[in-house]
Amino acid sequence: MYEIDSIGPVARISFARGKARNAIPIDQWDALREAVETVGASDARVLILRSTTRNIFCAGADIGDLSSLQERPAERSRLRHLMHGAIEALAALPIATIAAIDGGCYGAGVAIALACDIRIAGAKAAFGITPARIGILYPTTDTARLKRLVGEGQAARLLYSAMTVDGAEALAMGLVEQATRDAESAAMALAEQIAANAPASIKGLKRIIAGAEDGGQMFDDAFGGTDFAEGAAAFRERRKPEFRQ
Amino acid sequence: MYEIDSIGPVARISFARGKARNAIPIDQWDALREAVETVGASDARVLILRSTTRNIFCAGADIGDLSSLQERPAERSRLRHLMHGAIEALAALPIATIAAIDGGCYGAGVAIALACDIRIAGAKAAFGITPARIGILYPTTDTARLKRLVGEGQAARLLYSAMTVDGAEALAMGLVEQATRDAESAAMALAEQIAANAPASIKGLKRIIAGAEDGGQMFDDAFGGTDFAEGAAAFRERRKPEFRQ
Amino acid sequence: MYEIDSIGPVARISFARGKARNAIPIDQWDALREAVETVGASDARVLILRSTTRNIFCAGADIGDLSSLQERPAERSRLRHLMHGAIEALAALPIATIAAIDGGCYGAGVAIALACDIRIAGAKAAFGITPARIGILYPTTDTARLKRLVGEGQAARLLYSAMTVDGAEALAMGLVEQATRDAESAAMALAEQIAANAPASIKGLKRIIAGAEDGGQMFDDAFGGTDFAEGAAAFRERRKPEFRQ
Repeated sequence: MYEIDSIGPVARISFARGKARNAIPIDQWDALREAVETVGASDARVLILRSTTRNIFCAGADIGDLSSLQERPAERSRLRHLMHGAIEALAALPIATIAAIDGGCYGAGVAIALACDIRIAGAKAAFGITPARIGILYPTTDTARLKRLVGEGQAARLLYSAMTVDGAEALAMGLVEQATRDAESAAMALAEQIAANAPASIKGLKRIIAGAEDGGQMFDDAFGGTDFAEGAAAFRERRKPEFRQ
Repeated sequence: MYEIDSIGPVARISFARGKARNAIPIDQWDALREAVETVGASDARVLILRSTTRNIFCAGADIGDLSSLQERPAERSRLRHLMHGAIEALAALPIATIAAIDGGCYGAGVAIALACDIRIAGAKAAFGITPARIGILYPTTDTARLKRLVGEGQAARLLYSAMTVDGAEALAMGLVEQATRDAESAAMALAEQIAANAPASIKGLKRIIAGAEDGGQMFDDAFGGTDFAEGAAAFRERRKPEFRQ
Repeated sequence: MYEIDSIGPVARISFARGKARNAIPIDQWDALREAVETVGASDARVLILRSTTRNIFCAGADIGDLSSLQERPAERSRLRHLMHGAIEALAALPIATIAAIDGGCYGAGVAIALACDIRIAGAKAAFGITPARIGILYPTTDTARLKRLVGEGQAARLLYSAMTVDGAEALAMGLVEQATRDAESAAMALAEQIAANAPASIKGLKRIIAGAEDGGQMFDDAFGGTDFAEGAAAFRERRKPEFRQ
């Protein structure tokens, strides 16, 4: 249910299970993890997560599928670990990751978007975090990410009510970093801007944003790297730098 | 100075000391704690905190009353513990809590609003955190909540200047989650939306938002609960779920 | 390259190296630290950080200067410690600090603004965090401040793309606390409002915002202080308090 392709230095993983509104069955979480790892092993500089289907990004976990967990307790932690494995693989990618959301994004679909570095909402974007509608919960790491981005108050409002918000409201509360008409085009433009910058900087900055403890040493070492050699040369020669990976 | 009533599954605690702009004397903090505990012992699914008085939510601590603390050091920590007891009881309620603020909300009144899960500002809302005007401080837990919602910069701006902001600016900085014309109606609409969702989800999500360490086990266990049994049955039968507490 | 003056209780440190767009050479970080310490030793109640040059606040570190670090590894940690010394001295000042930004603010210039309590953007303000353009990184403490103010998502967007945002967008994402036409006038008006409040409150609130562990004792003690004596007297006598430092 995932397609991988690339446009120059930009890799794309696309949800492609349109008939089920890109809902993710229990047994498709591992394929998401594998798709992410495939991108991680490539020389892509940026990953865009998107959908091939109009008006839907990802409907979240497949609810029909979840019913089986009532009678099979052992499956519950299996689901949790599969979700966690895919979502944390995405969060751990050492390149920039952008979710281009131009349709419905619900439940675990929001958790996937939250694990990207940057979220861009399009005109058709709609966000809802819906476990309270059916009596289940939301994973702790995903709730923690939500809380860090929108604050405890908006996290409570979204989770308790299961309300749907559009791109403009999502931007206002910090659930997305950009709201625009066409999320795909904006994501590609941003990806190209990022891909033109120094890969070693993106990789290091991502670790520093995540709270790396050796940030001081990393800061010092960057001045001895090949990316800064090119950056400094370009500055002296008054030209644009061209970074290689 | 507090009135308790309920409308269906929604309990309300109303500030009702309009002649003193709902300022809270030292000896009324414990009554607030008791009102909160009364709601906690009821079968209410949502609590709305509001005022019976037009144009004022809560003026904060009673300043005339505070003067006595100059000469009586032992009373200082007593006040602090009484405030803390009431405010933390509110924060610890295992149901959704909403502050409907449609008038002035100052000093400790803001601390009370901050201890609710969600804050809704009406057209008459005005917020000010004013200890710097009279030479006192703001409690650490309340300042920490303020900082988490609005960030260190806006916390400093509000606290150092003691400025007043309206609902729109409060929303923009994250001090409230919703700004609207009529805070009471919006709070009731939101409360009904929340009350229609699974009570076990709200209770669990509140613990997870607060950072519960056993969130993984809670997540798994929810699939075995009566709320999910109803949620899954309703999904299969294509009807709205009806959750019981 | 720094000028210090004062207007009543408000001290000002002004970037004054307009010919180099207020870029900071390695050997000028210590002078910034000393300027901050000079203000700290004065009886100023508020510090405004500004520029004497139209259209530029601070271009950040001097890039020509940084090239020397390629060949001189020992200079790298020296630069890092000099930056850290100046920026943390600013953050540690026990009075209110306001950055009035009415022009370009780039790279380490943003780190300086982030170390102030409050940031005000004017009509000409433009913010960019640009290490990824030349292959270097951003210090950990400055990145942590950025993340706390704008969230991880906007921090990643700004740092990875090195994009420039104006005052309105900076306000929307929480990078500044106020956006207005004239940042200088707004900063002075805010400074005067703060300077009229109790100095002991500002000092204590700043420590509490920073997470002081003895906030409870500080809260109690404030009721015995001279500032509250004046505040309570003014309240009784229905006049404006006049606080002395």
